[in-house]
Formats: sequence, C-alpha cells, structure tokens
Amino acid sequence: MQIEARLKRLGLVLPPAIVVPPKTRLPFSFVRVRGNRAYVSGHAPQTAEGTIAVPVGKVGRDVSLTQGYQAARLTALAVLGSLQRELGDLDRVTAWLRVFGMVNSAPGFVQQPAIINGFSDLILELWGPDAGAHARSAVGMAELPFNIPVEVEAEVEIAK
Amino acid sequence: MQIEARLKRLGLVLPPAIVVPPKTRLPFSFVRVRGNRAYVSGHAPQTAEGTIAVPVGKVGRDVSLTQGYQAARLTALAVLGSLQRELGDLDRVTAWLRVFGMVNSAPGFVQQPAIINGFSDLILELWGPDAGAHARSAVGMAELPFNIPVEVEAEVEIAK
Amino acid sequence: MQIEARLKRLGLVLPPAIVVPPKTRLPFSFVRVRGNRAYVSGHAPQTAEGTIAVPVGKVGRDVSLTQGYQAARLTALAVLGSLQRELGDLDRVTAWLRVFGMVNSAPGFVQQPAIINGFSDLILELWGPDAGAHARSAVGMAELPFNIPVEVEAEVEIAK
Repeated sequence: MQIEARLKRLGLVLPPAIVVPPKTRLPFSFVRVRGNRAYVSGHAPQTAEGTIAVPVGKVGRDVSLTQGYQAARLTALAVLGSLQRELGDLDRVTAWLRVFGMVNSAPGFVQQPAIINGFSDLILELWGPDAGAHARSAVGMAELPFNIPVEVEAEVEIAK
Repeated sequence: MQIEARLKRLGLVLPPAIVVPPKTRLPFSFVRVRGNRAYVSGHAPQTAEGTIAVPVGKVGRDVSLTQGYQAARLTALAVLGSLQRELGDLDRVTAWLRVFGMVNSAPGFVQQPAIINGFSDLILELWGPDAGAHARSAVGMAELPFNIPVEVEAEVEIAK
Repeated sequence: MQIEARLKRLGLVLPPAIVVPPKTRLPFSFVRVRGNRAYVSGHAPQTAEGTIAVPVGKVGRDVSLTQGYQAARLTALAVLGSLQRELGDLDRVTAWLRVFGMVNSAPGFVQQPAIINGFSDLILELWGPDAGAHARSAVGMAELPFNIPVEVEAEVEIAK
C-alpha cells in the first residue's frame, strides 16, 4: 500500500465510481484486467462524491488552462479510484504504459499537452520516474460525453 | 462456432470486407494478429453487401440517436466479419479487452456513450458478461472518413 | 541494421528528438518499452533539425492533400527516430501492431485515410508486408498540439 500511503501524505482522496446523470447506461468495465495488463476505460474529472466535477465545457473557452490542468489531475484520481477498486492495492500497478489524453478543445486551442500534464505529473509523483513513465498522446476532441473538459484512457502493467 | 450459432439465432449476418469508394487505398490490415492478441482497425457501419451504411453524417444533426445506436451495432457486425475472416471461428476470441468508440459529433452533441452502447450491447449479448466485458471510451470526433457517423477500433484476446 | 540500411538507400534521415516551443513541458516517454512491446507516444511531423515541420494547420484548409500525406510520412520518420534512440537498432521492431493516425481536419474534410497512407506506406516499404502489416485507424481531430496537421501514436512488437 505504498501508493495509497503517498496519496494520504499528499492529502488526496480517491473518488468512488462515477455518478452519472439518470438514465445513463454504461455497459462496460472501468478497468478490464487480463493477464498482466489492465485496460483502463476513458475516465472523467470527478468530485469527492463521484459526480462530474465542474467546470465542464471546452478548454480555451469555458475552462481555463489552470482549470484544465486541475481537471486532468482529478481525472487521474478517478482512474486511480477505479484501479484501486479493481486491484485492491495500487502497488499492483507495476508500470504505466500508455496514457491517451483527450481535451475537449475550443477552436484554436492547441495547448493539449499542458492540460494532460495534470495527469502525468500526478502519476510520476506517485510512481516515480521508472514505474511511472508512460507513452502519451494529448489531443483535441470535438466533443466529450457530458461535456467534460478532459477524458483519459490508459493501459498499465500489473502484478498478479 | 458458438458465437456464429448465436448470431444465426439472432438473425444477424456478418458483412463482407468493406467496399470503399473507387481510388481509395487502405494499405493496412483490418485485423492484426500477434501471439494471443488481435488488434482491430477502425471499422465503419456497413450494409449486408459491404458498402458504407446510410445515413452518414454527424450524430445530433444528420443522424439521430436511434440511428447512431444502430450504426454502432452495424459497426460491431463489421468488426465481427473481419475477425471471422481472420480467425476462422469467432469462439477464438476469448476476451474483449478494449473498445474505442468514435462518434462523428455535431457541435453540442455529448451523448456519445448512448451511441456506442449499440456496439457494447451486441458484444455482451454474444459473449456474455465475462468474455464480453471490455474497457471502453466513447468520444466525439471532428470528422471521420467517408463521413461515417461511427468508427470503432478494438483489441481482443485470442486463443491460438 | 537492415532497416537503417534501407533508410539510407532511400536517402532518408531520421530527425532528432522533437524541439518544442520554449516553456513546453512534455513529462512522458516518447517510447515506453515493456517486455516485448513498445508503446509509441503521439508524434508530430518534424524537420531534419527536430523542429515542427511546416505547413501547420488543418488539412483541407491550410494543408493540402499532398502536404498532409507528406506530413504523415515525416511523422513516420519522427517515430522511427524515437524508436532508434530507444532500441539502438530498428531491426528489433519485429512487427508493427497498431497505428492510430490523427488528422487535424478542416470542417468537411473526410479523406483521413489518404493522409495517413503517408505513414503506412513508409512502414510497409521498410518492413515489408509481413512485419510491416498493422491495424490502423485514421480519424479527424478538432485540434492538435502546436497546430500540427498530423499526429500518430503506435504499438509495436520488439525483440529483446
């Protein structure tokens, strides 16, 4: 539980599973484990209660650079919450592999990497430069579900 | 051939390889197998003859929610057609891992999950809740090839 | 060094790591190796000096079809540069698996496959039809970092 201890030292709490608007049906697994891989579904920034965090909307218009960075950090916490519930112990994540960072982008907004750094920075802070290293893309989407500003999917290596 | 039997019971027929507009060159593999993994290229909704299904265009403007759901279901059938031709028997797909669902989205359309459910529902109906479970993202694209409303790429585990 | 020899015969030179605008922070790995897989981050078209190649902007408005194809080919060279630096010898890439081709698309531009062919064609020219075969998606993004016209991420199999 080293990662959990580090989260505690940083004063960070993992949110519960996402609370979505009524009638929303999400018939998939937030984390899909197979062998030594966990495939992580697209996650949203969440509040401590699990609901979608505000502000929502397009980065570069409704959401500032600072707010977008914070949204990506909240998205990392949401991903870690799902991994924790699935794996029991975040130390079982032995290596981050792929991070696909999607930014709901206003026309002309081209600083997607600065937003998704909010995700990468937290992963590296918690796992360090070896296990935390990851391949990444940070790109601009036309729209995202529920108008969220950031969505991240990922793939990690796990110990059995 | 259990999956094929289920498809038959549901009255579903898998389309042939996609028939694309003249002069279109697609120099890649619809399914790439390596070890116990099959990587599935982005697929489109197809007719029983293999051509791109109508309606095309943006969901939330040219394509309704119901039509978009149906397009995602047709995209699943197109993916299964490619897997069948590559693997010979769909029972060789032992686990669904990752589904990346892309919706050609009109400005302001944010119900991408409801569209990609057309893909997930069919996979779960055919493979059941264990083998059929999958990580998923459902996101809004600015444009898609040939103006298709939905495109899905995937990764599955296969038996040799 | 067979692939390197082929590059030389084609008169192609791999660029150095990307030179990004001042204050840009990219805290991730361009290539993440684990076991027999290398995960390749989203790459941009680069000049021989490593800077972002011109023209930038949206394909179908600022960037022509021919320029977009060439941008995808330059993106392949950038990916190969990163793989070369990480692996030492490009022959260690024993199979291409997944290519995710993102095109910064003007409204109404739907020829993404014709653009990403610039990437696929070079891979197939260098690795041949077996090792070079890959699953692929070619899709239209709303925005890309630094306003680049093309970005590609990938996954390859490697020999240890």
